[in-house]
Amino acid sequence: MNKLQINGERMLADLNSLRSFGACGTGVKRRAFSEPDIASRKWLANRMSEAGLVPHVDDVGNVFGLPGDTNDCILVGSHSDTQPEGGWLDGAYGVAVGLEVARASLECGSSPIACVSFQDEEGRFSTLTGSRVWTGQLSLGEADIRTDTDGLGFAQARRRAAEIGTVGKVSPERFRAYLEVHIEQGPVLDIFGDRIGVVEGIVGIRTEKQTFIGQQNHAGTTPMDLRKDALQGLARFNSEINARFADVVTDKTVWTIGHVALHPNATSVVPGKADFTIQWRDLDDGRLDKMRAIIHETARHVAGQLGLEWTSSDYSSIPATRCDDHIVKAFKKAAELEAPGKWRLLNSGALHDAANVSFLMPMGMLFVPSIKGISHNFEEDTALEDLLLGAETMARAINILTA
Amino acid sequence: MNKLQINGERMLADLNSLRSFGACGTGVKRRAFSEPDIASRKWLANRMSEAGLVPHVDDVGNVFGLPGDTNDCILVGSHSDTQPEGGWLDGAYGVAVGLEVARASLECGSSPIACVSFQDEEGRFSTLTGSRVWTGQLSLGEADIRTDTDGLGFAQARRRAAEIGTVGKVSPERFRAYLEVHIEQGPVLDIFGDRIGVVEGIVGIRTEKQTFIGQQNHAGTTPMDLRKDALQGLARFNSEINARFADVVTDKTVWTIGHVALHPNATSVVPGKADFTIQWRDLDDGRLDKMRAIIHETARHVAGQLGLEWTSSDYSSIPATRCDDHIVKAFKKAAELEAPGKWRLLNSGALHDAANVSFLMPMGMLFVPSIKGISHNFEEDTALEDLLLGAETMARAINILTA
Repeated sequence: MNKLQINGERMLADLNSLRSFGACGTGVKRRAFSEPDIASRKWLANRMSEAGLVPHVDDVGNVFGLPGDTNDCILVGSHSDTQPEGGWLDGAYGVAVGLEVARASLECGSSPIACVSFQDEEGRFSTLTGSRVWTGQLSLGEADIRTDTDGLGFAQARRRAAEIGTVGKVSPERFRAYLEVHIEQGPVLDIFGDRIGVVEGIVGIRTEKQTFIGQQNHAGTTPMDLRKDALQGLARFNSEINARFADVVTDKTVWTIGHVALHPNATSVVPGKADFTIQWRDLDDGRLDKMRAIIHETARHVAGQLGLEWTSSDYSSIPATRCDDHIVKAFKKAAELEAPGKWRLLNSGALHDAANVSFLMPMGMLFVPSIKGISHNFEEDTALEDLLLGAETMARAINILTA
Repeated sequence: MNKLQINGERMLADLNSLRSFGACGTGVKRRAFSEPDIASRKWLANRMSEAGLVPHVDDVGNVFGLPGDTNDCILVGSHSDTQPEGGWLDGAYGVAVGLEVARASLECGSSPIACVSFQDEEGRFSTLTGSRVWTGQLSLGEADIRTDTDGLGFAQARRRAAEIGTVGKVSPERFRAYLEVHIEQGPVLDIFGDRIGVVEGIVGIRTEKQTFIGQQNHAGTTPMDLRKDALQGLARFNSEINARFADVVTDKTVWTIGHVALHPNATSVVPGKADFTIQWRDLDDGRLDKMRAIIHETARHVAGQLGLEWTSSDYSSIPATRCDDHIVKAFKKAAELEAPGKWRLLNSGALHDAANVSFLMPMGMLFVPSIKGISHNFEEDTALEDLLLGAETMARAINILTA
């Protein structure tokens, strides 16, 4: 079979066209099922047709470009919806690369490739709505009752899918693997001067609310040794958790206390209650479970030391996803050929459609650098040569996988 | 001159009458210049007249009861306005004791005593409004432009002073000393089983806002060692300040981080900014200044360690007030006679009208226990025998001072 050879300039031209839908300064406003989103998906379906791919729109607005009736092709893509104020690359870049490799495969007569733009990855209605429904992780019935923050229902919004093209089913069984290239959305590649990240997996995410309850008291008349100050609980918990995690975590594990609410939160009152969230992410679900045990043990210990009560609530858990070993190997080989010594293995700290697709087929992801790590922001950007290199690395890896 | 002898039961009866104005369950709602406050001040002026005292109302609603034209009397009192949801004793107790000792001094033919209920101690319009204006710490013009949280101006509210009685001036030069008995509003006497607190001084209060600025980042894609997490700044500052204060403070010094605001305060975002207040109180202004230096030094150090920026703002300072040595000595002697081994020296951690009056004349304060330290709350209470003992201790101290 022939080798895949892509046209990087054409990919960049498509990416720039996609940028024009919902363009806003250097950024983009293209939320799922908004006017610009529908217009961009129509444009995408047209570009697929022009390339000789057959556009298929499913009932939640995912747009696939299929190379005829082939049943054993690699699917390449991402999502083209954005955050309310999104960057121009997040998702769109992977969609443009998917379109290019699928188009080029027809031109070259190489192994067949399909492409896709998933819908509502950014969670206007629900987390990764399009890929969750397509992969059966979320039923259409459950999706339909979700609403956006303005009260618009998903059931109503997704009627617009018919404006993109004839709505039908696309069976996941047609695809042998899913590949996605995405901007890193973090600072690691940029800081280390690497140009390609080969993703080993998408981290699992655990979130839990912790509450210390003490005694709300007058900040003038309550001596220090008679206080039960809930903020002291939070502060000590924070120090101890940093120390106790040290034996368990790797340099890729992260944990964050991002939300804090004191009660009554008044200058002259000893805090009677501290609510806060802790979120922790890692590629190893076993490690995440150990960390939860340490969190509980530490909180209980601190509460005991300071005479506080402790409770936890609102636990949520998204399991970690490993990329397929065979695909990772191909990506590593391709990265070393395209960017010798200038690539590294990474975890994806953010969720992606690829995590859902991995339930159905082997999955792999590549990252390109985000300048200063900025994403979900009009300032989001990546050097053009890195965007081209990401596409070339994807094409080379496909050649390795289909050799 | 004859000895002062009081009637404790009569004092309790007056205190119960005062409680009926604005009574609400076990508590009281009697804010400055509210209907119940005006009614209670009219009642107080009547009780003064019945006792042979001459009621004087000044232009901010302070109500004095004077023993004729004497120019060398001791002034005894407190305030009878309450918090929006106040306890039955806070202020009212000291007013009832003032009325009783002034009335009894006329009956006994002992050294002359005047009594007072200051207005708006609880700060509906401004901190300790009535005593601040009377002592010249706040001009009437400045007071008049203050409003309560509903927008009612003090200028308008204080017109109601005329409903209490003929408005006139009461010269502070008529008084040789000011004495006040108050509930502790803290837990110390209750916990140690003491029945009387002799106040050495009213603490100075310093408040300052601190801000750590880091880098707001994605909680999934930002490795721990690349973060600039503003909450980590707050937590480490809290630990270090607790350690560094140890060499400077006494067991009566207090400090509180009562208000915290993180930005953006979201579960999945590394906090980019932490604003928080720190308030510290002590009887020694020099110590308070040293503590401020330590706060700044510590915050700067922590910011440097964690790669954060640090700023401080909104500094406010209320100086400490020492009670008069001669009066403290008399109170100690009286306390040991009335409650042998069951009294202790205390600071007042809360502000009182006495702090303002101390600018003009020697001042002293006594405390009685607050059950469980509760105040500014409908549950506020003190054992009746402690209320009686506080009044007896006041009377005995007056006898010592006027012997």
